[in-house]
Amino acid sequence: MEIGILGTGMVGQTIGSKLVQLGHDVFMGARDADNPKAIAWAKKEEGQRALYGTFTNAAAFGEIIFNCTLGSASLDALHQAGASNLKNKILIDTSNPIDYSKEDLILSVCNGDSLGEQIQRAFPETRVVKTLNTMNCNMMVEPAKLPERTNVFVSGNDIDAKTTVIGILREWLGWKSVIDLGDITTSRGVEMLLPLWFSLRRVVPSDRFNIRVISS
Amino acid sequence: MEIGILGTGMVGQTIGSKLVQLGHDVFMGARDADNPKAIAWAKKEEGQRALYGTFTNAAAFGEIIFNCTLGSASLDALHQAGASNLKNKILIDTSNPIDYSKEDLILSVCNGDSLGEQIQRAFPETRVVKTLNTMNCNMMVEPAKLPERTNVFVSGNDIDAKTTVIGILREWLGWKSVIDLGDITTSRGVEMLLPLWFSLRRVVPSDRFNIRVISS
Repeated sequence: MEIGILGTGMVGQTIGSKLVQLGHDVFMGARDADNPKAIAWAKKEEGQRALYGTFTNAAAFGEIIFNCTLGSASLDALHQAGASNLKNKILIDTSNPIDYSKEDLILSVCNGDSLGEQIQRAFPETRVVKTLNTMNCNMMVEPAKLPERTNVFVSGNDIDAKTTVIGILREWLGWKSVIDLGDITTSRGVEMLLPLWFSLRRVVPSDRFNIRVISS
Repeated sequence: MEIGILGTGMVGQTIGSKLVQLGHDVFMGARDADNPKAIAWAKKEEGQRALYGTFTNAAAFGEIIFNCTLGSASLDALHQAGASNLKNKILIDTSNPIDYSKEDLILSVCNGDSLGEQIQRAFPETRVVKTLNTMNCNMMVEPAKLPERTNVFVSGNDIDAKTTVIGILREWLGWKSVIDLGDITTSRGVEMLLPLWFSLRRVVPSDRFNIRVISS
């Protein structure tokens, strides 16, 4: 499949490389067409399948788009990508609304709203599915590296889009236990998990951890 | 031990009954000395060990105090209890800052502050330990009812107080896996877990669920 990745950081690179390895054509988009991190990533993948260019190029290329930009830059990046290039497509939003201008961990939106909802409102003809934002990027593509099965969550308004994304999580990324939380407003819960994640990060041995929901 | 419980709701009743059954003397405090729920609870316990009265009475009675009031009422209740009655004591804060005046789930404080911190700031001579607020009250006192071990978190500035509370969680309530997140600012993470908890509540079979942190 042809996949667009918005963002050149660890999340974009990790997901992009995993999808290239699976045989997909992956286009990594950045603000500038000659982003050094995107160039280095495409070179490292050494194939025909890893391409790079602007956010606009990546969004136009992809049948499915991953938003892997910093949350603080996501809406700008998506506007650069262009509503017409995102129209009717599935946008898998992995971002977290961290305000890096603050010393403490502060979310730029929460508590009655979320970045997932802001994106869905800004691009009403795009089918936004929030997922994968609750863990380190290595966990995203290798959930089986943990000694026990853990959970990934999905939030979104479009049932068919969520079904497709759940398939991607299961078949491509190896997630055995996907929890559909409901509509895009449930992005609030997974984004507001971030402060607990950062607290846990300081007390567990590494960033290779995740949560599992256990019910009776 | 002599325990004060502030609050007459499900959380206060469930913890209070558990502690009475364990042989402790439990004083349930409310705004009014003749709160019908507190009277009914004390009568149900049918012993010498279940007492009731005002917040002030309960705080004066207890060597350790549980705050089981609604988050929106906690600071008021604690001021009624009185700083002098709480001085040097351990206050186990189980509350969540839910704003019940809103239709959506809105926290009255979050994202750079928390109710746990507000309480610690308002009562600097009290040793506040935030814990147990991340689950239904039945889970709090019967963690072994779940098919797998799950986690409870503690947050607080006073190391000795946390050690005592971890002992209470383990020995009295049966928690095998307690995670000390750090100082009272880590209350932010456990309070901000609430929106995810409510989303999960709608998709799991019952309110008998909890999370487990799995790391490699």
